[in-house]
Amino acid sequence: MLGRASRVVRVCQHAIRLPVLARFYASSSLPPTLHVLRRDAETKLASLQDMDAPVTAHGWIVSVRRHKTRTFVELTDGTLGGAATLQVVLPGEARELTPGQAVRLSGRMAAGRGRTSSQRVEMHAEDVHVLASTDLATYPLANVMHSTKPDSVAADIVRQVSHFKARTLHFGAIQRTRTRIELAMAAWMDQNDFCKVHPPVITSSDCEGGGEIFRVVAESDVAQQPSSVENMTAFWSGNDAYLTVSAQLHLEAYALGLSRVWSLCPVFRAEGSATNRHLAEFWMLEAEMCWLPSKNALGAILDCTEEVLKSAIRAAWHEGRAKDDMTFLGATDEHAASIEAPWPRISYTHAVQLLRAQCTEVPAPVWGDSLRSDHERWLAAHFGMPVFVTDFPSNIKPFYMRENDEQVTLDDALHPEAAGASRKTVACFDLLVPNVGELVGGSVREERHDVLLQRMKQSGLQSSSLTWYIHDLRRYGGPPHGGFGIGMERLLSWLTHTYHVRDLVGFPRVKGPLRH
Amino acid sequence: MLGRASRVVRVCQHAIRLPVLARFYASSSLPPTLHVLRRDAETKLASLQDMDAPVTAHGWIVSVRRHKTRTFVELTDGTLGGAATLQVVLPGEARELTPGQAVRLSGRMAAGRGRTSSQRVEMHAEDVHVLASTDLATYPLANVMHSTKPDSVAADIVRQVSHFKARTLHFGAIQRTRTRIELAMAAWMDQNDFCKVHPPVITSSDCEGGGEIFRVVAESDVAQQPSSVENMTAFWSGNDAYLTVSAQLHLEAYALGLSRVWSLCPVFRAEGSATNRHLAEFWMLEAEMCWLPSKNALGAILDCTEEVLKSAIRAAWHEGRAKDDMTFLGATDEHAASIEAPWPRISYTHAVQLLRAQCTEVPAPVWGDSLRSDHERWLAAHFGMPVFVTDFPSNIKPFYMRENDEQVTLDDALHPEAAGASRKTVACFDLLVPNVGELVGGSVREERHDVLLQRMKQSGLQSSSLTWYIHDLRRYGGPPHGGFGIGMERLLSWLTHTYHVRDLVGFPRVKGPLRH
Repeated sequence: MLGRASRVVRVCQHAIRLPVLARFYASSSLPPTLHVLRRDAETKLASLQDMDAPVTAHGWIVSVRRHKTRTFVELTDGTLGGAATLQVVLPGEARELTPGQAVRLSGRMAAGRGRTSSQRVEMHAEDVHVLASTDLATYPLANVMHSTKPDSVAADIVRQVSHFKARTLHFGAIQRTRTRIELAMAAWMDQNDFCKVHPPVITSSDCEGGGEIFRVVAESDVAQQPSSVENMTAFWSGNDAYLTVSAQLHLEAYALGLSRVWSLCPVFRAEGSATNRHLAEFWMLEAEMCWLPSKNALGAILDCTEEVLKSAIRAAWHEGRAKDDMTFLGATDEHAASIEAPWPRISYTHAVQLLRAQCTEVPAPVWGDSLRSDHERWLAAHFGMPVFVTDFPSNIKPFYMRENDEQVTLDDALHPEAAGASRKTVACFDLLVPNVGELVGGSVREERHDVLLQRMKQSGLQSSSLTWYIHDLRRYGGPPHGGFGIGMERLLSWLTHTYHVRDLVGFPRVKGPLRH
Repeated sequence: MLGRASRVVRVCQHAIRLPVLARFYASSSLPPTLHVLRRDAETKLASLQDMDAPVTAHGWIVSVRRHKTRTFVELTDGTLGGAATLQVVLPGEARELTPGQAVRLSGRMAAGRGRTSSQRVEMHAEDVHVLASTDLATYPLANVMHSTKPDSVAADIVRQVSHFKARTLHFGAIQRTRTRIELAMAAWMDQNDFCKVHPPVITSSDCEGGGEIFRVVAESDVAQQPSSVENMTAFWSGNDAYLTVSAQLHLEAYALGLSRVWSLCPVFRAEGSATNRHLAEFWMLEAEMCWLPSKNALGAILDCTEEVLKSAIRAAWHEGRAKDDMTFLGATDEHAASIEAPWPRISYTHAVQLLRAQCTEVPAPVWGDSLRSDHERWLAAHFGMPVFVTDFPSNIKPFYMRENDEQVTLDDALHPEAAGASRKTVACFDLLVPNVGELVGGSVREERHDVLLQRMKQSGLQSSSLTWYIHDLRRYGGPPHGGFGIGMERLLSWLTHTYHVRDLVGFPRVKGPLRH
């Protein structure tokens, strides 16, 4: 303690001895957010405490209503839930105030005269200072500040000006919900001994083998060799460098030392198709775990997936502000029901039977086909909640998924077209959710070196850049392991009932002009 | 409630009615980690409870010692703190066991016979099953599994085989510490009403104007136009696309709607120099906040920076396992002292005076020079704790930092070389920490449209791709705001006493061959 104290003294001496040429920054607080102002006032109101202390509120004006002797201003700063604002009552007409302005108001909190829960308190302001004005004639959000739904005219306007998106009520509710979900999932991971890791974004391999990838080159190499792609990899000493499409292979390396790992990282697909579900850049929460039980290995991964997602749903509905956001977004108690029930787990074979027997809306698949997104949505709608589909045919899944020992026995009468097909399956799953379709994918990984090598050759991939994965991780103490990846935007799309994933993201990246 | 119950029944009916072609995955648990096994046994031991329940332990063998009638195995799974292992006692010689194997052991926990805190309990195994063997003759880690320090021969070996890095004691301690730091900082942000946001990794602008950036092109465009760089931006409709060097500009857009925002994202610099502090890909925690007080605006940002970093330091030392990791890494109570004291805040001008008056080891700077990294380290060492240096000359800082109203008054006798220099400064700061140097950079942003435009022109940057930032964010309700960015690897480097940031990262990206 003595050493610590003397060090503090030494610092102070310097501060005193030196010439006063300089600014000195004393401790300085940010003003309270509207959320804190309102919460503190509500607490005082409920416990009959004095509310006379002067307060300062900062925010953007959503609307101004002028009465004869008073002006009512609705104020927002992005920290209240749903469509809630703080009502501020000003004396007089306050002619200088318009929507879109950033203002500082001084006054006192008081009991509100409104009837909704967000109107339990209001502010009586004595003084207002305009910090930043807005030219309403040219402000793109002038007429849509109140707009809520992304499938409206307002949404089209907002999509053109992503840099103003965070000022809309809709995006605020989305982003606050996303924050809650991420924090809850991180807490679940921590409580279950998963270590957070940071797999590289720039990688040397295309782990899915899909080809829809982005290449990374140093701009200095482009400038030196403007007409030659071959020389553009000088920064990487001639190696090809790509943006990762999945952290999985690297996560396996982490898991084979730390046992349980997870990451929250951006991933990239140079996807040309413009659907409501696809982005060129999106975030995945991926997890990988060792020591899977020898019986029912996949079941342990399904359990983890289900539990971490249920923690996210609980967080999205947890407290007052969260409920305000979810209600505002039009979300229903469907999610609450999803927390109560165990999620159905059916095999791919079972799913195909079900589609062939009962789905009349969409052409049914044959055993061996990939499930289309309309199949996925039909299955999720059929069960009315998230459903795990497991054990897909091995020839439609990546080489690293573990091959099941038994082949599937098919009823040839039900599957005449599939009579000659391979019946091999892999220990994998997709989690399908209503409206969205595939939300999570995962599998047990092929830990047997010889089987993995054979599967890779069959899939036509080169193993040279993956020696570390194919050979090293399998030959030196690599026990059974597996994992999953959750598309965070799709999770948010499901929870917040937002059809277009690009409306969930501040600056969505899709094929086309890059404006920001 | 009725609706929910009937839905569950419907699901069950399907499950029963459908043909049993499929696997069905019942709930299946992962086996407990060694951390949980040890913790539960210690709890039972301390409360004198029965320890007779059978348990199963999974892990990698670190060492095997054979006595006449017993074999002692040290087991790790990456979830214990520091160099701790679980000691397992097996009957007989257990000839088949070697270091590096992945094993499953069955038996019972018991009071330990060792003297250290990690030996309070041990396992008495009856059965062992080798899940994955290791060829010790070729295993790169065969002789370095126990190695601890990254500045040893072992470190060179580990750097060659990044995919085995997570199996080393050193990296495990690093990564667990990083997990704790991130969780604590996320909690601090949440408690202080900061909303987590997700700025894009692929951007259209180089916000620092440094030029050391990476370009992103779709691989399909490369394949179609192999010899033409110009056409390689087809995916982006002819726009240039880069990897972000900082999320700041986008964070400002988020903050000007949500008031307080933060992000944890990878950023990229095509940095050619191979120093101990630089990576081409690293993670930044960035925060941006609105409604800075009109007096002492920068002070509010310094306060936030100091508080969130102190929450990280506290977390790194918080509980038993955390302390084990930090002690193992050779960290000292210097950090604890940093929590107690307020961190000194001096101006750049003050820092230059101090260097010229007292620093004899390094050539002193002239007012107007950038501080070199050896200046930064000298200043941090001088104060013996983190020190904020504020208000740098405007001509050595980016255009978006807010210009101070007053010019600096210099003592020309002390600064003869600077007699003719501009004395303008900007409201910014660097946080310098011992051994590492710059850890955080931040500033108040220039919110005045005309000043910003002039500063941008002076710095020679084109504003065309930044219209949204320069014009829109300033003209439509943009109040005073500012923020900071913390280099997460440098924070970890400081806290864990790790000299090379690349030893902190699983798969570090630097100029040169890309192996993984």
